[in-house]
Amino acid sequence: MNLIEEFNTYRSEMNEKIMASDNKVIKRFFNLDTNTYAEGALDIKSKEMIGLACSMVLRCDDCIKYHLGKCYESGLDKKEVFEVFSIATIIGGSIVIPHLRRAAEYWEILEKEGNKNV
Amino acid sequence: MNLIEEFNTYRSEMNEKIMASDNKVIKRFFNLDTNTYAEGALDIKSKEMIGLACSMVLRCDDCIKYHLGKCYESGLDKKEVFEVFSIATIIGGSIVIPHLRRAAEYWEILEKEGNKNV
Amino acid sequence: MNLIEEFNTYRSEMNEKIMASDNKVIKRFFNLDTNTYAEGALDIKSKEMIGLACSMVLRCDDCIKYHLGKCYESGLDKKEVFEVFSIATIIGGSIVIPHLRRAAEYWEILEKEGNKNV
Amino acid sequence: MNLIEEFNTYRSEMNEKIMASDNKVIKRFFNLDTNTYAEGALDIKSKEMIGLACSMVLRCDDCIKYHLGKCYESGLDKKEVFEVFSIATIIGGSIVIPHLRRAAEYWEILEKEGNKNV
Amino acid sequence: MNLIEEFNTYRSEMNEKIMASDNKVIKRFFNLDTNTYAEGALDIKSKEMIGLACSMVLRCDDCIKYHLGKCYESGLDKKEVFEVFSIATIIGGSIVIPHLRRAAEYWEILEKEGNKNV
Amino acid sequence: MNLIEEFNTYRSEMNEKIMASDNKVIKRFFNLDTNTYAEGALDIKSKEMIGLACSMVLRCDDCIKYHLGKCYESGLDKKEVFEVFSIATIIGGSIVIPHLRRAAEYWEILEKEGNKNV
Repeated sequence: MNLIEEFNTYRSEMNEKIMASDNKVIKRFFNLDTNTYAEGALDIKSKEMIGLACSMVLRCDDCIKYHLGKCYESGLDKKEVFEVFSIATIIGGSIVIPHLRRAAEYWEILEKEGNKNV
Repeated sequence: MNLIEEFNTYRSEMNEKIMASDNKVIKRFFNLDTNTYAEGALDIKSKEMIGLACSMVLRCDDCIKYHLGKCYESGLDKKEVFEVFSIATIIGGSIVIPHLRRAAEYWEILEKEGNKNV
Repeated sequence: MNLIEEFNTYRSEMNEKIMASDNKVIKRFFNLDTNTYAEGALDIKSKEMIGLACSMVLRCDDCIKYHLGKCYESGLDKKEVFEVFSIATIIGGSIVIPHLRRAAEYWEILEKEGNKNV
Repeated sequence: MNLIEEFNTYRSEMNEKIMASDNKVIKRFFNLDTNTYAEGALDIKSKEMIGLACSMVLRCDDCIKYHLGKCYESGLDKKEVFEVFSIATIIGGSIVIPHLRRAAEYWEILEKEGNKNV
Repeated sequence: MNLIEEFNTYRSEMNEKIMASDNKVIKRFFNLDTNTYAEGALDIKSKEMIGLACSMVLRCDDCIKYHLGKCYESGLDKKEVFEVFSIATIIGGSIVIPHLRRAAEYWEILEKEGNKNV
Repeated sequence: MNLIEEFNTYRSEMNEKIMASDNKVIKRFFNLDTNTYAEGALDIKSKEMIGLACSMVLRCDDCIKYHLGKCYESGLDKKEVFEVFSIATIIGGSIVIPHLRRAAEYWEILEKEGNKNV
């Protein structure tokens, strides 16, 4: 199981358990969170780039992985994703670099997996 | 060794080594930290719920585990702990969700272990 | 106009304008935020203490003011509110102290205003 | 002097003094910071939206003002800017709301000033 | 009243009130906080530079002012203080810059006041 | 492979890949980051202590490891490094403690490895 599958499997499994706990505030927040990234005045690609950059400056590896996956799906290319990385690094400082390393690694796997599926 | 034992073992071992280093400020802070959660004008359960929520919005997995253990000991039930989770998630935003997943997983283990001991 | 009125007036005015902007995600989040602190498995007082402590460790003065007002309304006394302050200070460290000063000042005004209304 | 002029005047004055202090690391960082938002694989509008959202989740009012000004200049309209606001609010949680209020106020002034100049 | 006096006056006044509230955890923490910066294996100047840099990356203006005052008292010169500024800016990123501006302004006042006293 | 080698290997490998991506902003930032800790008005030991303390209050384990390695190289002894730990713990609060544990563990390995090389 690679990093992508590992992340997605744990994420789905735990999300399901959290939903099953039947806390209304959490359920509505999960639902709202999904709606936030739907096409609107801004397109999905722009929203996912914003989600990625925010995840980086807040230094949340799981959030970075999630939005990297979505950025890849919405057609972002390597030059673009590294520009998002660069903005987040300048805003958040050197403290972001360890997360940048893991983000670069995850992006590399996304590209490899994508090429396999062609 | 499950997640609970792993966490507690490493925590105890390293706390001992840190105490042995004989830095007075750190020693006094560790001592003060323990006193903070003693019964006072507020009861222990209230204090541990506060400790848990703060650990979640500050996104510290080890702190979450510690306070989840204490919340469980002080008699918090699942509905209550999920209300604490919901407040922390709304205050801290979607960035808290990965920690919420690990918190829900740890709580599940606490409940299972607790039932074994009955 | 004292600190309490100033805070409440600006807050109401801007909330209205934000609602008028008609962004559905924001509107739903504001609504959800309000529901979070409603009586449930936990009572309102417990939820507001949690909201206050989280606001302190995240160092958000406006959030502190808001939850201090709610804590006061829900009957928290000075000894209790200072225990919440103490937990937040130990968790968040000396970096919380400037916010603790402003929180203590705001609490003092709340008590004075409350006594006037008796 | 309105909020926009006040912010810009202080910013320029202090930036000049900081540059005059002749610390090479700071000078190069200021220069690099400016380059980060130049047109590249991503256009300026996308970069400024990212800058704005990151400033909001990191809760830096001055950074928000700066990027709001740039977003306005690069042609973002109200619906778009509120979608950026909504993403930042969901990611960062209710702790972002006080900054959202001040951002909405600043955007309103930007629009008023812009209409005056037509 | 200049920025330095304003800061010191409010700080002293509120610290006194907080001490008067007689919460033991807070009192002991205030005391411990003071001891932390006493001469030990490291000299006071080193400790205050560390305190200053940490306050900057955590973006706490009041903490910055406090440690800038102590750095000035312990004999730090302008070149040295700007090197501390530069480390904090690189670690914390552009989000630190608004605090850097206010820090540079406060340092300037400290130098002016110091020269008056000669 | 111990913790030190594991950390250094991954760090070098990913830094190389990031440099190969040829994003100019990131490349210049990496370069600037290195220059920040060069001898200047402050000596390297002081700068590395500052880097370590900032990494602790920002709770970045990889950054802590990096600066601990540099502190060890620049001759910091155990009493000194624990005073840096104590300042970071008081400033950042109990939320820093889990990182303090891992820092103490990493320092112990650094000392063991160092003694092997004598």
